[in-house]
Amino acid sequence: MQQYHKERLHMDMQQTVLDNGLKIYYIPKPGFSKTFAMLATNFGSVDASFTLDGVRYDTPAGVAHFLEHKMFEDEDGNALQKFGKTGASPNAFTSHSMTAYHFSCTDGFAENLEILLKFVFTPYFTEQNVEKEKGIIGQEIGMIEDTPDWAAFVGMYAGLYHEHPVRVSIAGSVDSIAGITPDVLFTCHRAFYSPANMSLTVCGTADFDEIVRMAEQLSPREAARVAARHYGTRQETVASPVVERRMAVSQPTFLLGFKDAPLAAGESRQRRQLIGDLAARILCGTTSPLFGELYEERLVNRRFENSYTILPEAAAAAFGGESRDPEAVRDRLIAAVRAYAASGVPEELFSRMKKACYGLNVRALDQLDELCRMQAELGFADECCLDFADVYDTITAEDVREMFARWAQPDRTSLSVIRPIQTEETV
Amino acid sequence: MQQYHKERLHMDMQQTVLDNGLKIYYIPKPGFSKTFAMLATNFGSVDASFTLDGVRYDTPAGVAHFLEHKMFEDEDGNALQKFGKTGASPNAFTSHSMTAYHFSCTDGFAENLEILLKFVFTPYFTEQNVEKEKGIIGQEIGMIEDTPDWAAFVGMYAGLYHEHPVRVSIAGSVDSIAGITPDVLFTCHRAFYSPANMSLTVCGTADFDEIVRMAEQLSPREAARVAARHYGTRQETVASPVVERRMAVSQPTFLLGFKDAPLAAGESRQRRQLIGDLAARILCGTTSPLFGELYEERLVNRRFENSYTILPEAAAAAFGGESRDPEAVRDRLIAAVRAYAASGVPEELFSRMKKACYGLNVRALDQLDELCRMQAELGFADECCLDFADVYDTITAEDVREMFARWAQPDRTSLSVIRPIQTEETV
Repeated sequence: MQQYHKERLHMDMQQTVLDNGLKIYYIPKPGFSKTFAMLATNFGSVDASFTLDGVRYDTPAGVAHFLEHKMFEDEDGNALQKFGKTGASPNAFTSHSMTAYHFSCTDGFAENLEILLKFVFTPYFTEQNVEKEKGIIGQEIGMIEDTPDWAAFVGMYAGLYHEHPVRVSIAGSVDSIAGITPDVLFTCHRAFYSPANMSLTVCGTADFDEIVRMAEQLSPREAARVAARHYGTRQETVASPVVERRMAVSQPTFLLGFKDAPLAAGESRQRRQLIGDLAARILCGTTSPLFGELYEERLVNRRFENSYTILPEAAAAAFGGESRDPEAVRDRLIAAVRAYAASGVPEELFSRMKKACYGLNVRALDQLDELCRMQAELGFADECCLDFADVYDTITAEDVREMFARWAQPDRTSLSVIRPIQTEETV
Repeated sequence: MQQYHKERLHMDMQQTVLDNGLKIYYIPKPGFSKTFAMLATNFGSVDASFTLDGVRYDTPAGVAHFLEHKMFEDEDGNALQKFGKTGASPNAFTSHSMTAYHFSCTDGFAENLEILLKFVFTPYFTEQNVEKEKGIIGQEIGMIEDTPDWAAFVGMYAGLYHEHPVRVSIAGSVDSIAGITPDVLFTCHRAFYSPANMSLTVCGTADFDEIVRMAEQLSPREAARVAARHYGTRQETVASPVVERRMAVSQPTFLLGFKDAPLAAGESRQRRQLIGDLAARILCGTTSPLFGELYEERLVNRRFENSYTILPEAAAAAFGGESRDPEAVRDRLIAAVRAYAASGVPEELFSRMKKACYGLNVRALDQLDELCRMQAELGFADECCLDFADVYDTITAEDVREMFARWAQPDRTSLSVIRPIQTEETV
């Protein structure tokens, strides 16, 4: 067992790794009413192609999300109903790179943790329940495909990457999930739900020794071999500079992606993420000089968003929202990136934004779900979320300039635009 | 100054009312990294018609939301930029019944509180900046009108009420906001941004005496008279049992409203809200018997939602999501309401759901923004959010049955449905 203490944040973390490889993190949060627990596997939508025990599998797009849905069902009923009896709030999500199951509760922590560990480590798939789920997930896919924001998001990744599976929507399509069978699900569970590929993170008020004892009892004794993943051939430039679609929107919705270099071997994931968040905010956060100009010119509105995302063998910044002229916004963003890359980031701007980003990170410590998600993500890279304050100290304006210099290279952007359906008058 | 102490929740609240009528609440949250402050006025989208100093005003729909946007602008710049320099996260929202301005920060609390108090109490509207805002808000309205969930929400209230202004969308329409002038905004600010109609709530780590001292210095000395509001003639039954619209969705999106009696004079708002939340969860929360059946039959999916809302002279429960057959879901919901109204709520179900609702309320104490919003809302009714635990003790299955009996009366439901646009094949 290791104990971290971060005096400047007034926070601690206890951690250990079980013999079967399961990582366990506990962050005490005295003063909080609830306790949050997350059991996560390092397996997301991009991990659909892999090799396990010498056999290559190319599973249908959307299999990680499908598996998440099916895990809740056990031979003796649905885990949601079991949590319902304890009064806890359970949920789950699948991202590009992770599947996580979690609950929050105010009492009965051990009882809830037992339900969580049992259902996630117990695969139960039948022909019948898999077929039925296809209808349910098919509806979910239909709904999400109706959403302009989601369509812009999917389009951006399709524009940025040639082969990387991030090009494909997390939930897959009605066609792709048609190919999912109980066998496929059992294979994925075996390949990626090995304790050696997973972590259990708890924030709030609990007994670390009890967590460890329960996890030892309720997780598989053996660390099954984890599959090797395939992400396709890597290319530095984008697949398409513009990706367009038409939907029923009143004005264009867009997302501009800057393709960055993937994490290098040995590079700190946390440091890259903090530099990326900082760069995104400096370039076009709501208090940045460029955002102020674009807002004044009514090219963007208050819902403009920026983000920086790290995935296996991929990393990208994204900027977007609604605009009457997405191409104009893109051109201004690219011009600003080139200017910062050439002349550096002014020290006053850098300090102000660094302070703001640091504040956001400190405030996120109050968000137990967010804290668990961060530690789960960083834990897969053997890093600790409480180190962010120390890592910030090492970040300079030159680090941000270097990132902008990578974004400023030719053919590194893709603009995904959802345009209004043309009405008869304008055709 | 009054001091509440809730031993069973391990929480305190300090409160006072300034001579000018401003209510101040402070809830210490030791162990939290951030501090959250909210300055709220008891003025929302439903308060567009009022009488002030003997004159009746019928202002354009959407004026409260428009005013919220314009408040950020001051003669010496935009408040968002001022917060940007301190590293705090500011924001604001307008609901049917409230406008609130808030920030969260990790340090520099006093500096941020000063910015908040100054900009909310300083109206600054010019012909030019009001005209410009019409374009910005017009775009926002267009975007929100594209959203099926929002359209279903607006349709439900239009179906439930004959005259009540909740029928109209919070932001109004492009046409209605065209009628907004600086004069209209000054009148509304005078009518409803009187300290006697407002509250300041702080959760986190701050010095109560300093909050009070600053609020005294930075709020108007005099309590301006607050306007009297007009909500139209009240009717017990609904305006339309079904409201339909077509949009680009893959399957129908719907919201079923049950029209309840408005809060009676002297009735506890908190108690009604807790009974309403409990009734909604018992009827069709995700762990309710009915939801289990509907989910099994694929009539609803996991995104099904339930809520209970109290507004001035109005109260309603809402249930909805996506369904291949909204009418079937409505019929099942109504049948279940009638059954509970006739036979009562089984004690086991009642206890389990009460425990779950209580847990949700306790967990909400960790959500500082939510806690401030709750206290702001309850403070306008001179109630205290920390009383919920004691209030729960008084709630019985019979209270819930009585609410169901009101919902079960004839002509108390309105079904708002957004149907897919018919394609040529199906016409």
